[in-house]
Amino acid sequence: MARPLVGHMDPAFVSMMEEIKGMLRRVFQTKNDMTFPVSGTGSAGMEFCFVNLIEPGDEVIIGVNGVFGMRMCDVAERCGARVTRVESTWGQIITPRQIAEALKTVPRPKLVAVVHAETSTGALTPVEDIARLAHDAGALFLLDTVTSLGGCPVDIDGWQVDAVYSGTQKCLSAPPGLAPVSLSPRAMQVATGRKTKVQSWYLDVNLLSSYWGSERVYHHTAPISMNYGLHEALRLVLEEGLENRWRRHEKNHLLLKGGLAEMNLEIVSQAGHQLWQLNAVGVPAGVDEAAVRKQLLTDSNIEIGAGLGPMKGKIWRIGLMGETSREKNVETVLIALRKALKK
Amino acid sequence: MARPLVGHMDPAFVSMMEEIKGMLRRVFQTKNDMTFPVSGTGSAGMEFCFVNLIEPGDEVIIGVNGVFGMRMCDVAERCGARVTRVESTWGQIITPRQIAEALKTVPRPKLVAVVHAETSTGALTPVEDIARLAHDAGALFLLDTVTSLGGCPVDIDGWQVDAVYSGTQKCLSAPPGLAPVSLSPRAMQVATGRKTKVQSWYLDVNLLSSYWGSERVYHHTAPISMNYGLHEALRLVLEEGLENRWRRHEKNHLLLKGGLAEMNLEIVSQAGHQLWQLNAVGVPAGVDEAAVRKQLLTDSNIEIGAGLGPMKGKIWRIGLMGETSREKNVETVLIALRKALKK
Repeated sequence: MARPLVGHMDPAFVSMMEEIKGMLRRVFQTKNDMTFPVSGTGSAGMEFCFVNLIEPGDEVIIGVNGVFGMRMCDVAERCGARVTRVESTWGQIITPRQIAEALKTVPRPKLVAVVHAETSTGALTPVEDIARLAHDAGALFLLDTVTSLGGCPVDIDGWQVDAVYSGTQKCLSAPPGLAPVSLSPRAMQVATGRKTKVQSWYLDVNLLSSYWGSERVYHHTAPISMNYGLHEALRLVLEEGLENRWRRHEKNHLLLKGGLAEMNLEIVSQAGHQLWQLNAVGVPAGVDEAAVRKQLLTDSNIEIGAGLGPMKGKIWRIGLMGETSREKNVETVLIALRKALKK
Repeated sequence: MARPLVGHMDPAFVSMMEEIKGMLRRVFQTKNDMTFPVSGTGSAGMEFCFVNLIEPGDEVIIGVNGVFGMRMCDVAERCGARVTRVESTWGQIITPRQIAEALKTVPRPKLVAVVHAETSTGALTPVEDIARLAHDAGALFLLDTVTSLGGCPVDIDGWQVDAVYSGTQKCLSAPPGLAPVSLSPRAMQVATGRKTKVQSWYLDVNLLSSYWGSERVYHHTAPISMNYGLHEALRLVLEEGLENRWRRHEKNHLLLKGGLAEMNLEIVSQAGHQLWQLNAVGVPAGVDEAAVRKQLLTDSNIEIGAGLGPMKGKIWRIGLMGETSREKNVETVLIALRKALKK
């Protein structure tokens, strides 16, 4: 990111844009032409997907099992969608059965959306069957992969995801600032065939496709340095290999889980569906959870997350994402936790 | 920007946010509490202003004398505004008389908006009288300062601007990626007293004010590295001093203008209102303007801009912005142009 800047229409940058698109396709496991980084953080990627696919009055089914499912509902409603919420207890997954149930009430939705890896709860929802149900109902399937991409299997074409967004700062290990997205040809058909204009000029894929596509029509000024960062991060992901990267995340998650068990601490997300990259640890009764986080930050330079919403005060969230998913880091956080808890 | 990352809620980053807000206030010359960088490029700043202030059906008067006035109309219409265009020939300014004329037809608009420095044409519109007319009509006054901020006088409180946006990559000389914005208390009253929700979740100032304000409620993940870059850029602007910086931009503009005159080249924007930081040079008859730009880029590593819209093929746009407004650069571009034109 410290490389000298070039103009956003400079041939050198244009080649880099093509390389970024190519590498993103490999990481998303997709052939989708419309695969590129939105010039904003992950939530801008979420908004990109909804503003382009939704028109006022559209029916949408959204799985809600944490902060980011709630956020999707808010974003969709601001696009004029009629939202049907499919709710699970925080920490639990969204099941195909729940979606099938919702489809009985709303049989022809425009879109079904779920969060793959809920950063707020540590639950990983399997999505292949949900995607199938969505398609059987004639709907598009939208997936949030902010925390999953690069840290566990994400297979956009294999799972037939129509719209997906992610962030750079989780398992891709670039700084925050861009939101990789991908739209299937079916999603592009919906976006280009709209009756109304996309409500956001900045995120309108009909304009963005001319800039990120072969026409190179000026739209906005892309954040050059952020794209340098993403380019290098993607190169490192592919150098390691997706499969190797997933195995590393899995291994270090199990290592952490084992160490936590020795302290009688446990991961509270649904058994069998726990994220490797985000570990939701139950706070033991009588422990001041904020004091522990503060001590870790002050004494050991380790930031762990607090619980959000109904999990506030009840969990710590320990990230082992991308470059930070290392044996050494697992050992360090275990030692620091042991010290803070005087175990 | 190569500094190690910290979390977006880390106390170290929170202090930096406060410093950025403080320095932005000095550069904008405002006391507005709601002064901060939007997590997107300049056009996201434009969208931020319109989505927060406009509700469907609102009347808006927009000055159009180049690409960015046109863009404002598009963005405003996507918010449901009824837009009245006040048009000038590209390269000319928008006059108070034109705005007064429009106010006869639309006597109570919600908002009057103009572009201060039109990057596409090189014209600088004086805005103090326009702001007064807007306020006399009970409207808010919105100003685009993407290219002016840091390169020529911008006085938000003195001119009574209610909403302003800028970009980092022009005269502030940071990489592109953030959009500094500021809303007056009057604009904040409008934004917080809306009947409808802001259509963009990502840009909703009602949510952003809790993150950038004292509550520090998590909204989106701010682009940390970009904020490092902006922080340092603002520090350098204030170290030089606003007045010194403006004088430097003026001096180098005059130097370029003199050198161009010796080659019988002239700046085509309206006399008396030519930007110091963006010089719109008329392409002489019979010259292949694209070939000249290509030669400058290839032989001398200099990127100059092409004309846009009705000025396509008719002008070159030579930027002398922020750090690049240097005597040495003026000499270099003059030599390169002389060579390309064989003068």
